[in-house]
Amino acid sequence: MTTRTSADPSAQALYEAMSGLAGPLSSGEGAAPDFAAAPRAAAGEEKSVLILGAGVGGLTAAYELGRLGYRCTVLEPQTRTGGRNRTARKGDKLYELDGEGNSPVLTHTCAFDKGLYLNLGPGRIPYHHRRVLKYCTDLGVALEPYIMETTANVVHRAGHTPPGRPWRNRRIANDTRGHLAALLSATLTESDEFTGLLRDLLRKFGDLDEEGEYHGSTRSGYAEPLEVQEFPRPAPPLALADLVTSEFWKHRFYQPVDYLWQATMFQPVGGMDKIVHALTERVTSEYDVTVELKAEVTSVDLTGDGVSVTYRSGGQELTASADYCVSNIPLPVLKQLTLTGFSTEFRNAVEAVGFAPTCKVGWQANRRFWENDHNQIYGGISWTDHPITQFWYPSNDYFSKTGTLTGAYNFGDHAEEMGKLAPGDRLRLARDGAAQLHREFLEKTTVPQDLGVTIAWHKVPHQLGGWADWDPADPAHQVAYKQLLQPEGDGRFYVVGDQASPLPGWQEGAMMSAQYVAAQILGLLPRTAPETVQVPDATFLTQGL
Amino acid sequence: MTTRTSADPSAQALYEAMSGLAGPLSSGEGAAPDFAAAPRAAAGEEKSVLILGAGVGGLTAAYELGRLGYRCTVLEPQTRTGGRNRTARKGDKLYELDGEGNSPVLTHTCAFDKGLYLNLGPGRIPYHHRRVLKYCTDLGVALEPYIMETTANVVHRAGHTPPGRPWRNRRIANDTRGHLAALLSATLTESDEFTGLLRDLLRKFGDLDEEGEYHGSTRSGYAEPLEVQEFPRPAPPLALADLVTSEFWKHRFYQPVDYLWQATMFQPVGGMDKIVHALTERVTSEYDVTVELKAEVTSVDLTGDGVSVTYRSGGQELTASADYCVSNIPLPVLKQLTLTGFSTEFRNAVEAVGFAPTCKVGWQANRRFWENDHNQIYGGISWTDHPITQFWYPSNDYFSKTGTLTGAYNFGDHAEEMGKLAPGDRLRLARDGAAQLHREFLEKTTVPQDLGVTIAWHKVPHQLGGWADWDPADPAHQVAYKQLLQPEGDGRFYVVGDQASPLPGWQEGAMMSAQYVAAQILGLLPRTAPETVQVPDATFLTQGL
Repeated sequence: MTTRTSADPSAQALYEAMSGLAGPLSSGEGAAPDFAAAPRAAAGEEKSVLILGAGVGGLTAAYELGRLGYRCTVLEPQTRTGGRNRTARKGDKLYELDGEGNSPVLTHTCAFDKGLYLNLGPGRIPYHHRRVLKYCTDLGVALEPYIMETTANVVHRAGHTPPGRPWRNRRIANDTRGHLAALLSATLTESDEFTGLLRDLLRKFGDLDEEGEYHGSTRSGYAEPLEVQEFPRPAPPLALADLVTSEFWKHRFYQPVDYLWQATMFQPVGGMDKIVHALTERVTSEYDVTVELKAEVTSVDLTGDGVSVTYRSGGQELTASADYCVSNIPLPVLKQLTLTGFSTEFRNAVEAVGFAPTCKVGWQANRRFWENDHNQIYGGISWTDHPITQFWYPSNDYFSKTGTLTGAYNFGDHAEEMGKLAPGDRLRLARDGAAQLHREFLEKTTVPQDLGVTIAWHKVPHQLGGWADWDPADPAHQVAYKQLLQPEGDGRFYVVGDQASPLPGWQEGAMMSAQYVAAQILGLLPRTAPETVQVPDATFLTQGL
Repeated sequence: MTTRTSADPSAQALYEAMSGLAGPLSSGEGAAPDFAAAPRAAAGEEKSVLILGAGVGGLTAAYELGRLGYRCTVLEPQTRTGGRNRTARKGDKLYELDGEGNSPVLTHTCAFDKGLYLNLGPGRIPYHHRRVLKYCTDLGVALEPYIMETTANVVHRAGHTPPGRPWRNRRIANDTRGHLAALLSATLTESDEFTGLLRDLLRKFGDLDEEGEYHGSTRSGYAEPLEVQEFPRPAPPLALADLVTSEFWKHRFYQPVDYLWQATMFQPVGGMDKIVHALTERVTSEYDVTVELKAEVTSVDLTGDGVSVTYRSGGQELTASADYCVSNIPLPVLKQLTLTGFSTEFRNAVEAVGFAPTCKVGWQANRRFWENDHNQIYGGISWTDHPITQFWYPSNDYFSKTGTLTGAYNFGDHAEEMGKLAPGDRLRLARDGAAQLHREFLEKTTVPQDLGVTIAWHKVPHQLGGWADWDPADPAHQVAYKQLLQPEGDGRFYVVGDQASPLPGWQEGAMMSAQYVAAQILGLLPRTAPETVQVPDATFLTQGL
């Protein structure tokens, strides 16, 4: 059941048998159904599939089913494909639901200079998200490194780092390492060989002196600029007491250590939506796949032979039917539809989980001040306890004149509160937060107010949130998630998307889910859910870091 | 004395005054002499400079003096500029001195496919090496990220990690963090607020459980590939005893933590020699600078009015003279020349320091097996206690068909021993070391023997080593280094290069030294050495990591 990109699968298998490498070394390796084992639909016997929603999950399902000869129609309510995979460029219109959560309202239009862009949804691809990387390779989507962390990034903590004088990542990270290593070293009283080795490890780990004490390290930077006559001396260390009382580790400082954000990450050159553009182009040009935009589904009926779907398009109410239906509609949207012929268990499952609120803010900057001699920041994220939470620097077009910055990416209450603000007020709030990291945000010629964009995903029509907020501790979620892994209506109706995957909020999850469902439709996997099902943990994304 | 790239220097100064950011945040910021304050040489009064050696230091001196109207002649014994900044491509010939260290012998010719290349000398640029980055920007040299470390990299330790089953970086790094944090947490018996915070920090730092214990973390990878029904479980942790007794931290595992190798690093797109090509092109096309290749200096005479240099070129012995002479000749080569009119102090200084032995090996691979689903390695370095020491993966052309690997980069005894071998034997040794990391090295169709290149820098004519092996603990070095920071012969003869900088082995050091000497010649800096001079620490490069 495992596909490999290796040029020589038999050599690869031999290698693993020889080396035992199939074990821990291959952890996290992507496994995908073996679609090569599925027969193409015979001519004249082709099966039809209605795919609801042209997000990454829907498009991937169209790709996998389409290339095996299934006739697919994708119904997408928006004027673009991609769903939350969205990249803002000049002229792009941003809509949100009004205060009552009813009508979509045009809130603003992106006014970036031509050639600039900012990813409003997913922004990075881990090296172990093999499906995303494989589709990019197959589709010819060029990738470049996404820099998650540079030690030049900064941290602002109210009451600890004065506004405009944040701490550098390298000082926090390495002075903390040094202090912790020294504390532990001081507790080692044995004189056996193991303890000797442990002391040596701690010296290297924390850059301690021969006595096992920490007095600062050039890992944290130099005390002053280098000159020919001066060998680098370490900057004076941040005191352990200052570090600890600042509680810098709250608000995500160690997020880049987690597997999902470890180097080497990637991003598509030119914007994340290159993936959905390439997927859309491939399925519509090479397979029997039609994508209907501005087609808003209102009801799904399983009481007939196949699946019947009603949708609004061009002011009309239309009906389409097919052998199978794959729903990439976010669960909070799906539960608002008229669902006929569905089980109570399925209806309960759809209603069980909410989607997480999350906001982003983007800025065009007219000079890349963060890359100057003073800041020296090339990519990565600065962290703050301000409601903006995090501040991303671009991992593309380094050393050019202008660029875009992600000026907020927040969760939970911060996102709820920010989402209640009108876009102009969100930008003002985000500017305040950014100015605590970079005083250049006080200059509106450098970062013009009218070149900001903002999105509150929980208010975006047809989305209603960032990702399914699965919580393994919630018994209702345990029932619901398992239910969603099996089709309704005798194998006719399927749910896809990162919402039905162990990776909520990640494109890899959407693709994994689409492959799983395609394999169920193709008969490569059983149409019942696996016996043991773990509930995804989305709380990890927002609170666990 | 500080130059800034900021578009608006006054706003920058104001910002720093407001924010106090000029302090620790700007640590490591490059400072360069203010060449704008130097008057251009008046017409008809132009001064002449002989620059010996077209390495990075010599070319930078030609750039800074040339653009102020000084007439420069660069004498370079080789058929190319760049010195140790060298990128191997198809057809490049590699010469080394014969067994007696006398005659240069053609050892082999690079046979990489067209379009492939490998940096044989410097391979990366730290974000705080502001001079290199500024020259690249000024010269239009495109840069891309150099990935120093990915957590998919591996470590091989004889007797601890079986051949072909190395440990992943992410497991070593994060299981060690976890165990150390748990050890320290267990020693905390106080119940005050500070200790409570410290415990919380340790939980985040080491990914400990609520009891402060470490039982593994997804930071180290997943136990098995993800499926829709399975939320990621951590791989079982490496035991502390296994980690400690493996002594993994020896042989450079924590090198990427050091300031010099912290993210975000860069490399020129297309090869490091793009820098010297751009420098050579700029100085010869825009300034009054001539570069004479195959011009081997044999003597320098300071007894006349200016400086007189004798050199061999085209079978002839020629003499050139000028007002100033800037020597970029490596000290071990310089001491072999006939030096007339030099002080004893200077001669002693030239002889005081040796150059470090260092070897590199490069491979062309006919498929990028390291990027496949099994290995998932994109850039970074794997470490081994085999004599090859380290193994680099390319930070360019990801997801393409073929690529080049740095199959050895070693120091000290390993480099001495490897340098004694004939190139074919070096490649065989390097293949053995690589096969312990990647069994694909057992397949000569994947990594053909005749597509390997190797260089022992200490045997390369006109170089004789990797860098000046300065040791601050050596009293002779303290005298010598200071001596080299001031000119000989009444301000007529100067030494440049990373050998006369606090950054031996780094292009930033060569450029810093060239700027320092140019400023001395221009009268912007005194021609005496600074009163207090720190000796560079090159031992750090080889033993301190």
